[in-house]
Amino acid sequence: MKIDLNCDLGESFGAYTIGMDARLLPYITSANVACGYHAGDPSVMRATCVAAVSAGVAVGAHPGFPDLVGFGRRNLAVSPTEARDYITYQLGALDAFCRAAGTRLRHVKPHGALYNMAATDASLARAICEAVRDFDPALIVLGLSGSAMLSMAQEMGLPFAREVFADRAYNDDGTLVNRRLPGAMIEDEELALARVLRMVREGEVETITGKVIQIRADSVCVHGDNEHALAFVKRIREALEAAGVEVAPL
Amino acid sequence: MKIDLNCDLGESFGAYTIGMDARLLPYITSANVACGYHAGDPSVMRATCVAAVSAGVAVGAHPGFPDLVGFGRRNLAVSPTEARDYITYQLGALDAFCRAAGTRLRHVKPHGALYNMAATDASLARAICEAVRDFDPALIVLGLSGSAMLSMAQEMGLPFAREVFADRAYNDDGTLVNRRLPGAMIEDEELALARVLRMVREGEVETITGKVIQIRADSVCVHGDNEHALAFVKRIREALEAAGVEVAPL
Amino acid sequence: MKIDLNCDLGESFGAYTIGMDARLLPYITSANVACGYHAGDPSVMRATCVAAVSAGVAVGAHPGFPDLVGFGRRNLAVSPTEARDYITYQLGALDAFCRAAGTRLRHVKPHGALYNMAATDASLARAICEAVRDFDPALIVLGLSGSAMLSMAQEMGLPFAREVFADRAYNDDGTLVNRRLPGAMIEDEELALARVLRMVREGEVETITGKVIQIRADSVCVHGDNEHALAFVKRIREALEAAGVEVAPL
Amino acid sequence: MKIDLNCDLGESFGAYTIGMDARLLPYITSANVACGYHAGDPSVMRATCVAAVSAGVAVGAHPGFPDLVGFGRRNLAVSPTEARDYITYQLGALDAFCRAAGTRLRHVKPHGALYNMAATDASLARAICEAVRDFDPALIVLGLSGSAMLSMAQEMGLPFAREVFADRAYNDDGTLVNRRLPGAMIEDEELALARVLRMVREGEVETITGKVIQIRADSVCVHGDNEHALAFVKRIREALEAAGVEVAPL
Repeated sequence: MKIDLNCDLGESFGAYTIGMDARLLPYITSANVACGYHAGDPSVMRATCVAAVSAGVAVGAHPGFPDLVGFGRRNLAVSPTEARDYITYQLGALDAFCRAAGTRLRHVKPHGALYNMAATDASLARAICEAVRDFDPALIVLGLSGSAMLSMAQEMGLPFAREVFADRAYNDDGTLVNRRLPGAMIEDEELALARVLRMVREGEVETITGKVIQIRADSVCVHGDNEHALAFVKRIREALEAAGVEVAPL
Repeated sequence: MKIDLNCDLGESFGAYTIGMDARLLPYITSANVACGYHAGDPSVMRATCVAAVSAGVAVGAHPGFPDLVGFGRRNLAVSPTEARDYITYQLGALDAFCRAAGTRLRHVKPHGALYNMAATDASLARAICEAVRDFDPALIVLGLSGSAMLSMAQEMGLPFAREVFADRAYNDDGTLVNRRLPGAMIEDEELALARVLRMVREGEVETITGKVIQIRADSVCVHGDNEHALAFVKRIREALEAAGVEVAPL
Repeated sequence: MKIDLNCDLGESFGAYTIGMDARLLPYITSANVACGYHAGDPSVMRATCVAAVSAGVAVGAHPGFPDLVGFGRRNLAVSPTEARDYITYQLGALDAFCRAAGTRLRHVKPHGALYNMAATDASLARAICEAVRDFDPALIVLGLSGSAMLSMAQEMGLPFAREVFADRAYNDDGTLVNRRLPGAMIEDEELALARVLRMVREGEVETITGKVIQIRADSVCVHGDNEHALAFVKRIREALEAAGVEVAPL
Repeated sequence: MKIDLNCDLGESFGAYTIGMDARLLPYITSANVACGYHAGDPSVMRATCVAAVSAGVAVGAHPGFPDLVGFGRRNLAVSPTEARDYITYQLGALDAFCRAAGTRLRHVKPHGALYNMAATDASLARAICEAVRDFDPALIVLGLSGSAMLSMAQEMGLPFAREVFADRAYNDDGTLVNRRLPGAMIEDEELALARVLRMVREGEVETITGKVIQIRADSVCVHGDNEHALAFVKRIREALEAAGVEVAPL
């Protein structure tokens, strides 16, 4: 039994620092590195790739919308063609830093609004998968377990990995409960840990309505925005290892 | 006897169109494609790479400063490290579109102010060459004949190509006469054609002071901004071919 | 009987030129000047304001989304607060060039996707009107005749002006027929002229279903993207004047 | 005897936070607010103006180069015309938020590389002063005591204020010692405090060579990047007040 721990990294920009990348790297196995559109700049990208390689962490691309001031979190009505081209651009840019750091891109996980839109919009998901396929058909598409994004990757024969969230509630259909609704965030740490273990080991999760549904987990998404988040990542890793689950890259 | 004809392409951006790329492609052999920093966007980059491949024209990267409003023409006091990272980013981004179009990057020619600064600043030239080497040591560095950029490429063992200009006057030391000085531009087309032929076939050029100096030409830089420029490119190509010079990519 | 002719101006950017501003100015009475977000740059803004003043044309702000590569034409899910702040920023920036050119802002017309979204989204329309009111409650809100934008301006006591289109078909409820639908564009010039005269003089228009509805016109939106469009603007102006309608700013 | 304490504020951007603006405001009397070019965004600008007004702090514009990734710290070879237009744009944008917050711009202090370049380049200083004069000739130009910027403001009849630095060494000619040289920064807090008091009360400072020169101080520049800096601002204010100097806006 094996699980990946992925986290968004390299989101600093110029004089601006976000995240505690250096302190997180020892605990995660995959880094989703920002590519300069919603966050990140070339020097941050280089440093992040070098640090990830040094920590033995797999590097993936974390492409987003060209919306730095909105941090890629706002829906933008791009055409599928534009989305495809934005992904191609960002994949190439990040892979250049991977090469310079002695590694290659391993996975792709869209960021923010692009991630959410592609989880339900099949034409957008197709456009993203086309960019991935044309760049390197061995890249792993990392997406929300049960999403249109992963269905499309599967349909197109791309390797994919299913991501689950420790701190989010699920609807009965396996989608995430909208953050604005009550109960969307799992704030009780013990409960969150128990849910992660259950999803990883038993392949099931209790939804917001109390129903138990099946869920497949190849990777757990973690966050490193503050001391509290960092401490929780350590606990997740320890709990998984204590339960005999191997924590390893995809 | 062989010569390359290179031209800057793919400098349109979003709703903005510059250049007559489609009409120029039949006459040139190398395209320097903008990479989204000083000009170009992902959709323009893709279309330009596809069109170049279709026309049998070699694709090179034309990286510039992150100064869209200045079109990369203004000196920016970047550190060598920043320059290296900007080049890496742009090489990777453009190469991704090359791959999608079924080709690979063949050369690199910095744009505008970056080109001019690297022609005389050895530390900047080194930084650019390091980015090229780490990305792909087989990429050809295309630069001003006699520049610090090419000396550095040579010193670092990178393949390089020497570029000459049909429409520019030269100083006695082989540098270009500053555009703001009288006589800097060769406006007489017959004279310009004769100078190109002499540089390519005889390896010499008459400087602005009337002295004849040696100059090595692997590629002639041409422009396609307007009808007049386009017509002149055709004439250069015809004159070269009529003189028995093979016009071919680097 | 009086009508304003408005046109988007100042949409060039850096090395990129769009539009035929100098040739259009003699025929229009209001210029909607881009403010640097979706198009325009500070030097273009200054030159456009100076040229408008010199031609006796009223200057208005044409604020858009911060999406230069998309020319402000793509819906962006901004919050009302963000929209308000983007409008405030752009109003101030353009007004500074108006002052330097010896005039002041007269009206505001949102651009592209922002215009379309605010035509039907009351909370967005309110946010825009709040920015206008806090900047200068005497500014005229120029919007689609019958839109949520103008209802909100009216509700908030701001002066407003109703815009009609010469080249667009209308639905029975007074909204514009979506550009992607057949018949959305009025391509017959004689018909378009006749429709403009009817809207301006009789306050009515025949919809796409053949029904005649009432429509109020304070300003006709014209375009200046190409020779054909420019010639049509001249014809509209001549036809209006020949019909005894005074063509004058709002 | 009276002195102003000025600090750069509003340099956060989107999801990125820099500075401790709220905690600094009680101790300063003038805020130099970033205008969206090198830092700041419309929402940050609004919030900063509101907070400054609420704290009784005067708001000034802190315009910079359009170089967000470089935080406006890198020399950019703009023409005087471009510089003038960039200043006009930023003055207008920030003033719109001042109006909405119930105040008006009081001063202008260029940022970073623009500040440094204009301190010695008279044509750049003139361009900036022209933008200020055309926007509002009552705006106070805040610049380095003894700089070309202030000479130009004086020559053009603009009000100006002379700024001194607590933590920087001075050359014999009154310019700042380059940060890269040893001794450029005054790291001993007691010494820095004593120097501030001497500059403000006695109009003199000991240069890096040990010579005592005259210096005129209307405002002391302070920083708020970290806890240490914040504590030092409090000490400066207390020391000035204890010495009977009134701390008040320009």
